[in-house]
Amino acid sequence: MLDQRALPGEERWIRCESVGQVAEAIRSMAVRGAPAIGLAAAYGMALADDREQAAALLRGTRPTAVNLAWAVDRCLAAGNVLREARRLHREQEAADRRLAELGAERFEPGDRALTHCNTGPLATGGYGTAGGVLRAAWQHDRLAQVWVDETRPLLQGARLTAWELERAGIPFRLIADSAAGALMARGLVDRVVVGADRIAANGDVANKIGTYPLAVLAARHGVPFYVAAPVSTIDPDTQSGERIPIEERDPRELGSGPDAFNPAFDVTPAELVTGIITEAGVLELPYEESIARVASG
Amino acid sequence: MLDQRALPGEERWIRCESVGQVAEAIRSMAVRGAPAIGLAAAYGMALADDREQAAALLRGTRPTAVNLAWAVDRCLAAGNVLREARRLHREQEAADRRLAELGAERFEPGDRALTHCNTGPLATGGYGTAGGVLRAAWQHDRLAQVWVDETRPLLQGARLTAWELERAGIPFRLIADSAAGALMARGLVDRVVVGADRIAANGDVANKIGTYPLAVLAARHGVPFYVAAPVSTIDPDTQSGERIPIEERDPRELGSGPDAFNPAFDVTPAELVTGIITEAGVLELPYEESIARVASG
Repeated sequence: MLDQRALPGEERWIRCESVGQVAEAIRSMAVRGAPAIGLAAAYGMALADDREQAAALLRGTRPTAVNLAWAVDRCLAAGNVLREARRLHREQEAADRRLAELGAERFEPGDRALTHCNTGPLATGGYGTAGGVLRAAWQHDRLAQVWVDETRPLLQGARLTAWELERAGIPFRLIADSAAGALMARGLVDRVVVGADRIAANGDVANKIGTYPLAVLAARHGVPFYVAAPVSTIDPDTQSGERIPIEERDPRELGSGPDAFNPAFDVTPAELVTGIITEAGVLELPYEESIARVASG
Repeated sequence: MLDQRALPGEERWIRCESVGQVAEAIRSMAVRGAPAIGLAAAYGMALADDREQAAALLRGTRPTAVNLAWAVDRCLAAGNVLREARRLHREQEAADRRLAELGAERFEPGDRALTHCNTGPLATGGYGTAGGVLRAAWQHDRLAQVWVDETRPLLQGARLTAWELERAGIPFRLIADSAAGALMARGLVDRVVVGADRIAANGDVANKIGTYPLAVLAARHGVPFYVAAPVSTIDPDTQSGERIPIEERDPRELGSGPDAFNPAFDVTPAELVTGIITEAGVLELPYEESIARVASG
């Protein structure tokens, strides 16, 4: 896998030959993004001798993104794990393409969209979630420019999303996370689109820290706020956002001593979400109902 | 002056022997903080041969903080410029002490206060504005802990506020700017207190980028939001926040190429401000009236 910690400076590849190496790659965020860590875990399962042990190891790496546990469960139940991992990969690619097209329909020519963290191909192993929506909107001439939150502390926006958009030829400007409010107040943002790490049954969304303030600001300024995620990111067993485990990462990611507090995710309440863009359609309020429909297949 | 760009790694001192060197120190943010750049400009005026030229040079360094223009005007009108600069310095120290005490009265034992950027002694040449309020609240046993926004892009919170609080022995934890919303949603913030670079006649507040989102989040969560500033930061000639010039700084402060947008300040509308803590009292809504009272002496 491509080591995302080294980007954009270096395109360094990691070869994982054991499930332990895969678990370490997930934990250290060499691979990150909810769908991508799900796929990494699936391929990790294919490397394992003892599936039950491997499942426990992988599930313990990162607690918030539900795709990981979901992919591990799928592999546990499969006859041929490698074949199942490849199927999940193909399904992810198809879901990405489909949700990107559905999301792009919500854009209008000239739109300036703001996004947070990284949700492109690096984050999914496919076309991207929110990043895929942006790519599809651009291809359909429904996007003028992307505002990219740098996304502290690990700078996934500045390092990864900027790198992806540059390669895709999509115009963008990088901003400090804290500048999004000023941009909205000046009328410079037409749409916000972000990914998700877990969506509860009531539509509450756990995503990269800083997502919730964007949703609050978007609501204040009447800017549509979209979440783009495959159905596998929806966890019908988690009733609401309060029940989603929020990972706290090493305070040293903030570059200082131990006196930092570093929650990796926050929870955006469903009522602030204009729509959840999935491969099965754009879900809308009331999410209890629209999610139940999708979750039941 | 202490070179604030080198902190906390190094305590490097700069000796300015001309108004040009002072102007460069302000522009490059070797000295920053609205009251501190006002004082630096005043001492810069004292170094100048041609006062009118010096005034134009200093006024052109940074556009948003009104203290700078105000201090330059005071020096232009003075008989002895050095004496006037020293008077301004003493006045600032007295204002800081007084507003810190008045602000501390708004705190209650056990309070966890969130602050943004740096507003302590480094920012004023005295006791600090919002930082002074925190110090006074701590001394009166009305403060349990400070949440310090790291304050991208230049990390004044992580570098300067953390350094000051450490030296003052006040417990604090550093957070990413984007984590403030999650903290408020969890009920971990009892009060927000920030400084100001310019306060318009209607109470709109220009302050470090990222202040406005904090005010919006505080309003949503019922957390009192205070602005602490000397009366010299109030600009009765600027009617509202829309009229405050907002400095855009070098995109490279965000650490990437030229594709960044880097406004240094944002504007918080008056209706989101619980109180403006000044040496002349804590001003409250309607600000047109409370500010007019103070501005008329």
